[in-house]
Amino acid sequence: MAASAGPEIERLIALLAKLPGLGPRSARRSALALLKRRDQLLVPLAQAMTAAAEQVKTCSICGSLDSTDPCSVCSDRTRDGALLCVVEEVGGLWALERGGSYRGRYHVLGGLLSALDGRGPESLRVGELVARAGSGEVREVILALPATVDGQTTAHYLAERLAQTGAAVTSLARGVPVGGELDWLDDGTIAQALRARRPA
Amino acid sequence: MAASAGPEIERLIALLAKLPGLGPRSARRSALALLKRRDQLLVPLAQAMTAAAEQVKTCSICGSLDSTDPCSVCSDRTRDGALLCVVEEVGGLWALERGGSYRGRYHVLGGLLSALDGRGPESLRVGELVARAGSGEVREVILALPATVDGQTTAHYLAERLAQTGAAVTSLARGVPVGGELDWLDDGTIAQALRARRPA
Ligand SMILES: [Zn+2]
Ligand SMILES: [Zn+2]
Repeated sequence: MAASAGPEIERLIALLAKLPGLGPRSARRSALALLKRRDQLLVPLAQAMTAAAEQVKTCSICGSLDSTDPCSVCSDRTRDGALLCVVEEVGGLWALERGGSYRGRYHVLGGLLSALDGRGPESLRVGELVARAGSGEVREVILALPATVDGQTTAHYLAERLAQTGAAVTSLARGVPVGGELDWLDDGTIAQALRARRPA
Repeated sequence: MAASAGPEIERLIALLAKLPGLGPRSARRSALALLKRRDQLLVPLAQAMTAAAEQVKTCSICGSLDSTDPCSVCSDRTRDGALLCVVEEVGGLWALERGGSYRGRYHVLGGLLSALDGRGPESLRVGELVARAGSGEVREVILALPATVDGQTTAHYLAERLAQTGAAVTSLARGVPVGGELDWLDDGTIAQALRARRPA
């Protein structure tokens, strides 16, 4: 890639190219930008990555990522424990939090059911979800899953599994564009879809 | 941005968003991808960045970046010292090296003259270039600058300054698309433009 650049730069470019949205060319540009701003960007980013690798934990209750376990949402006594919102990944939780209108708790599923990829319920945090939903405190489970085939398959499966718990099961209103990933929606759309949520 | 995610993740996202080509959304996706692949990607990338910050030097002869000073090109005795290729930035040097057809040496200018940005010759490595070109060893200086207004202004200025040195001054053949950055060209175009270079 840049045989004249020495092993450190080679390795930096090869690893940067693995970030989502960065191909080999953007990775080379990023490596140069980092090396040109060594004290302002390269060293701080290396330190931030090391700190994140050491400090960030997966919440043992909801599956989110945070500096503490339980995470800041799970340990916030002012959040409404009667509402439990199921998201595919942490990015969906962040999107809902940016929206600012949801004050309940979360459950990060860790993926979606996928016939194509051979991903079944045992690879997702489904058992934990059913247990939390059936604990007595939860009145409503809101499925905030993407409006894709896998997202809707997963929503139907979860609605069946959750029927036994006594909690109402709703999902975000259409308003989420078909094929749309939650993480890419503007905050207003998310807030609206949340308000107009309906039974799953 | 993700107030529920703790200070380490916040800081990681904020710094990632400063990389060229990564906005806030891609930065969030990258942060999640890094945290999900902690041992395979996050920790290695943090180490690669630290190693690059500590090991990578600016070559005192040509201005390139490498693990050694002088860089691997400048210390390669098999390269043709009669040819000196001037590039705007290290990315241009890498692009020419990927092309594989150039076997001379380089001079990294460190930018372009720009009336708009108020960048004059004193902020570029022009004096060093004139000194190298006039050292007696250099027969031809090849200006591999972008086909933009600033690139061509800089080429004309350098051609005048280099006239005194006795070295012939050429520039890459048109073949470099107008407005095109060297770093974004395919390797074949670069090799062709190099073969068909013409007097500046
Ligand atoms: Zn939690
Ligand atoms: Zn050098």
